[in-house]
Order: sequence, then structure tokens, then C-alpha cells
Amino acid sequence: MSSSSSIDQPNVITCKAMVAWEAGKDLVMEEVEVSPPQPLEIRVKVICTSLCRTDITAWESQVPFLLLSFHGMLYQIWALKSLVDCRLYFLGYSAMKHQGQIVESVGEGVTEFVKGDHVLTVFTGECKTCKHCESKKSNMCQVLGLERRGVMHSDQGTRFSVKGKPVYHYCAVSSFSEYTVVHSGCAVKVSPQAPLEKICLLSCGVAAGLGAAWNVADISKGSIVVIFGLGTVGLAVAQGAKLRGASQIIGVDINPEKYEKAKCFGVTDFLNPNEYNEPIQQVIKRISGGGTDYSFECIGNTGMVTTALQSCCDGWGLTVMLGVPKTNPEIASHYSAFLSGKTLKGSLFGGWKPKSDLPSLVNKYMNREIQVDEFITHNLPFEDINKAFTLMREGKCLRCVIHMPN
Amino acid sequence: MSSSSSIDQPNVITCKAMVAWEAGKDLVMEEVEVSPPQPLEIRVKVICTSLCRTDITAWESQVPFLLLSFHGMLYQIWALKSLVDCRLYFLGYSAMKHQGQIVESVGEGVTEFVKGDHVLTVFTGECKTCKHCESKKSNMCQVLGLERRGVMHSDQGTRFSVKGKPVYHYCAVSSFSEYTVVHSGCAVKVSPQAPLEKICLLSCGVAAGLGAAWNVADISKGSIVVIFGLGTVGLAVAQGAKLRGASQIIGVDINPEKYEKAKCFGVTDFLNPNEYNEPIQQVIKRISGGGTDYSFECIGNTGMVTTALQSCCDGWGLTVMLGVPKTNPEIASHYSAFLSGKTLKGSLFGGWKPKSDLPSLVNKYMNREIQVDEFITHNLPFEDINKAFTLMREGKCLRCVIHMPN
Repeated sequence: MSSSSSIDQPNVITCKAMVAWEAGKDLVMEEVEVSPPQPLEIRVKVICTSLCRTDITAWESQVPFLLLSFHGMLYQIWALKSLVDCRLYFLGYSAMKHQGQIVESVGEGVTEFVKGDHVLTVFTGECKTCKHCESKKSNMCQVLGLERRGVMHSDQGTRFSVKGKPVYHYCAVSSFSEYTVVHSGCAVKVSPQAPLEKICLLSCGVAAGLGAAWNVADISKGSIVVIFGLGTVGLAVAQGAKLRGASQIIGVDINPEKYEKAKCFGVTDFLNPNEYNEPIQQVIKRISGGGTDYSFECIGNTGMVTTALQSCCDGWGLTVMLGVPKTNPEIASHYSAFLSGKTLKGSLFGGWKPKSDLPSLVNKYMNREIQVDEFITHNLPFEDINKAFTLMREGKCLRCVIHMPN
Repeated sequence: MSSSSSIDQPNVITCKAMVAWEAGKDLVMEEVEVSPPQPLEIRVKVICTSLCRTDITAWESQVPFLLLSFHGMLYQIWALKSLVDCRLYFLGYSAMKHQGQIVESVGEGVTEFVKGDHVLTVFTGECKTCKHCESKKSNMCQVLGLERRGVMHSDQGTRFSVKGKPVYHYCAVSSFSEYTVVHSGCAVKVSPQAPLEKICLLSCGVAAGLGAAWNVADISKGSIVVIFGLGTVGLAVAQGAKLRGASQIIGVDINPEKYEKAKCFGVTDFLNPNEYNEPIQQVIKRISGGGTDYSFECIGNTGMVTTALQSCCDGWGLTVMLGVPKTNPEIASHYSAFLSGKTLKGSLFGGWKPKSDLPSLVNKYMNREIQVDEFITHNLPFEDINKAFTLMREGKCLRCVIHMPN
């Protein structure tokens, strides 16, 4: 890394980054120029990062910016344009630090952060002023939410370039780089005592699962829960259910190797659909005495959302979907599921408002009230990031933490 | 009517009833034999009755017992068998009374009712002992719910016959008859001061709409609501929303004649989709500033459920479906509707537990806290019941009260 910045006037930083030039192809290490932060932005040194299944889905997809299509055609077109430009910049979620501290420099108007602060960066921000940030019922910030995640909010531009050509951001974070620039509304200050190589998992999947159980479903003591998909998100839901005192936590996965790990997080019954000749929802209804109180879809399979609805009980059965589908985006269900009293809702980042809520989650980790370390099955250096993609794609890891060079 | 009953030993009653022998064909007045009530049943004299759109849907359908298919194939088969038997007995919801009182006789073990009590009968009962009746979260009684609604709970038999051949019940009520037999768990004792020819509407559609607004959606003050379908159920939702202090109540209907009446119930904006060249959800999003807080589907059109989901706002938008679809039973929606924070739930009888809750609704009517009379657009004598079917089918009435002979 070479930097020509002075203390008062941060300048362009040239550093290493892993760039996804083509969908489904290995990321390539490049020298990348990282612009100084513009007003309300911060530039941070990335200490470690990771990736989740949604990153793989986007990377594998013909339209890699799947997450960007949340709000309709406009963003699909935008994503396709990015693909044509061959300027895909791929990212995971991250913890960031500079020179033993974290924040490297701050843009004009940033009062919340100073150089050296430890931060977590998040894919959905919190502006604290929009109608959604002001409501207790939503974490869908209308200013720094899921729209325009490939460019910066202020000027619709990018802060990355390779040999003078622009490279786009991904999901507002862009952490597969030694340095990155994010909007200050997408960064959360955390205690400098908290180990970044662990709590980086709280900026996405683990928080998403815990929040789905606590904020979105609000699981009550003694209830019965079924979870489809025992990856990190599903197991974080299990942990959340266990901590709420659920009496039975049924885990469904076609990979029998998941069961041992699942027990650590509270799963009491393991079901492999391939071992049954009847639909798995019938098995679930039988072993739960008529259907579960809650069902969680953590795979990203819309057909499984229907199965999850059929698995929960009449009257008050609640199905929460967390996964981003890899293929068919349409959820279909017979109307009778709803008229018999079931509810379907989605969970994005577990309903957490990142700035307001993540620091307390970090505290829970520091107080040993929640497990995070147990999700880390692999640690890899930055240059081996493609191995992390392979491990995730083959279902051989939960979370792989990627460590940047010192 | 001729009765051979003694006071202690009720016997068969022969009286007039309107029987649906064929789907979609006029009901036929017949002499029907009504058996005495068996254990835990009561026999009542019907004073007045009415019909709702679900009755028409069932009557028009090739498989008329559509409502019975709620719980899957078993009941579809059962319904088809009934059709083959040509013994369809058609009913609405009803208020019942005997000889200026109401209950005519009670079966063994009935302690809640005595001869002369005024009752409302309901299509979904309340046993007060099952898991759902004991829960505050459900009105889906597992003993007297929507299953086996064509026969009596105790012996799977019918209490009606014409010339010695059995005639089936419909939806546990069977009120298109001067006398009927219901399970005591499907009857609700009401104040004898309450006018039965008005409060009969509280045993189905009006209560369903109010409950959807209050119990299921729990509409908060100042919120924005859209209602698809301005029939009785939709207008009862509007009334519920108005009484909760909603700031904007948008009514959507293709019949412009509905608007004048809709104003009485609180509708502030009327939208006729036929008058717009753009999808109606776009219009709704525009006039509500980004989407409504709540949307209600009161038509019975699964495609409109999707539209309702698209009409409500991200973050906390709640769609409640109340209608029973006439055709396509599958609801389809893009997953992004849910991941952006929307929720879909169903409402059956507005979440009311009939025995526990209907008496207080009757009191609200008596205290002029809710409007009921305004839903009654027509009154007809029993022998003209087919006119009521025509009025309902042609969308020319809200509720038509049918009065039995004295």
C-alpha cells in the first residue's frame, strides 16, 4: 500500500483488492486506487472480512447484483449495465481498522467518527432522520437502504478505480480491499476492546439470525420452532430460539454433517428430507403435535417458503423468510394457509437498526451472552479468498474469516 | 310447521326450508324434517337470516363446498360426494328464535342454553377447551372449526331430511330453514333486548371486517389504509379503521356506485381501477406517500392479494386477506415484498372467538358505538330468498335480511 495523504488532506490510497471481473470466475488481486472520503463518508482500513451465501448467489448469478433487484427493474437494469462494463467489485461484510486503530480518514461533515475508531460496516445503513429510521417498526432506511448499493449515495460515483477505470462498490460495504470508503451512515462504532476478527460476524449473518428470532418473530418461551437450512443464519436463529427458551428446535437440512454443529446452537431434532418418503412438512407436523409455532426459511428457496408455511400450525403459526432466492423469485401458497391463521413475513438483517442496535449485540458477545466464535470454522489470508468462495459454495464451512495483511 | 314434541322429549319438527339441489340453480322450498337435538346440540327457530358472498361462491361453484376445502383434499372429496348425493342444504348466517323467544329445545348435557334464549349462530365454533380456544392468539377452534361442516360433530350425521332422505348441513349453521339444529358450541347467547333482524349481521361479515381491522391488523391512530372491495366486509373494515382514527382510508372498487355508501363508513378516497391506465398499486403508492400502512383484500381474488401487498409500504406494511377466492386459490408474490418488511396474514371471522367476543360487539351496537343498520340495503320474506341471491350476485346490495314467516 502506498499513501500520499497528509493528516488534513487525505489523498488517494493505492492498495490491494480482490476484484470480481466476471460472474462465477475467480476473484483477481489488483492494485486499486481508493479515493479520499467525500462529505459524510469515511475511509477505513479493513482488518478482516468474511462472506455469506448471498455474496455467492450474486457472484454466481448471470445478473450478479441480485440483491440490488430488491426494488424492481430499475436496479436490475443498473446491475446489467455494471456487468457489461466488466467492473464488478466484490465484497463481503467486514470489520475495519487502520494502523492498529480503524478509521483512516473522515470526510467533511462527519462528526460521529474520528481516525482510529473501531467500526463495523453494514450493507443497510441508518440515516436516523427518515420516516423508517424514526419508526420503531422498521430498519429499512430510505436514504441508505438497499438501493444504489454499487455507487456512493452523495454523487452516484465510485471511490475505486483500477488503472484509471472505475470499479463499482457492492452492497455499500466493499470490504475485499485493504482500504474502502463507506457512507458514515453504514458504519457502526464499536468498543475497541471487542476482537474485530470475531465480531465482524455480527455485521451480517449472525445478527440476521438472532434478530429474526428476537425482533421479527419474537419467539416466546416454550414454543416449537423449525428452521430450514442450517448454515450460519439458520444456526443463529437456533441460538436465538434457544436463548428465548424454545422447547423444541427442529433443524432441516439435506447435509447430515450439519447436525453435530447444530446441537451446539440448540437444535434438538434433526430432519434430513432425503431420508423420508413423505413430504417433510408432514413429518414436522407429526413431531410437533400439529405444526410448529414458528418456521424460518434460511435457504433462499421460494418453494421452501411454501413448505415452511405448511409446517407451522394454524391459528398463530408464523413463517419468517430470511433467504435471498437463487432462482425462482416467486413465492406461491394456497390461500387457505393464511385464512387458517398463518402469517408470512420477511426479515432483513433481523430487523436490527445497525447504529442503534449493533453495539448492544457486541456487548452481549463480550459478556458471553451469545456465541459467535463457534460460527468460525475457517480462517484464511486475504490472498486465499477464492478458497473461501469454494468452501462456502460446497457447504463445507459456516463462516470463514479472511484476514488482511498487516 | 307441525311439531309432535312434548316439553321433555323434543321430537321431529316438520317445517319449510329452502334447499339447494344443484349448484347455481334456484333454491327450492321444501317440507323438511328437523330431528331433535342430540347431546350438546340445540334446536332453534330461525327468525331471520342473510347471506354473504362466500355463500354465493359455494353455491355457484362446481364443488360447492369450497369453504370445506380449507383443510385439504379430504374435504374436497367429501364435498364432491355430497354433490353426487344431490343433498345440498344451503345456508347463510342467522339469528334464531322460537315462539317469541329463541331456543326451541336443547340436547342432553347442554347447560349454557335454555328454551327461549336469544342466540346468534356462527360458522366457526368455540369449544373453550382445545389448545386454540385456550390461546389468546387464535380463534381456530380445533373441535368446532371449519372441518366437517356438512354434518354434525357428534355422530357425523345430519339432522335434516326430505321425504326420509338425508339433507346435509352447510357451514355448521343451516339457517335457510324455519328450524335448525346446531352444536351448542356454535351458538352465542345474546341480550334479548337486541333486535335480531339487525344483529344477525354480527354473526358473519360485519364482525369479520371490524375484527380484521381491530384484532388482526390492530390499526393504529393516524395510519393509512387501503381496502380492496367495498362490499359489506370491506366497508366494515373501513368502519373499524375510522373508529381507530385512521387518517386516510382508500377504497378500491370497480363499481362507482359504491362510493356514496362507502363515505358513511369512513372511506376518504375512492379509486376505480378501470379509470386508470397504470396499475392501481402505483396510484395507491402515490396518493399515500409511498404505500399504505395496511391493505385489506376483501374481494376473494388471489391476484388482488398480490396487488394489496404491492400497495402497502416497506418496513411495516401489513396485508390482511379476508376473501375466499372464487377461482385460482394460489397466492403468488415476489420474495422482495417480504424481505422489504411486508407481512401477509389471513383473517377468519376477524379473529373473534364467537362466544367470548360477540356479546361485547352486540353491546357496542346497542350503545351506538358501531353502525350495523346501514349495511342492510334490502329486507325480503323467506320465500323470496332467490331474489337475495340475485341481488348479491349482481352487486346490487350490501346485506339483504331475510325474514322467516311468523
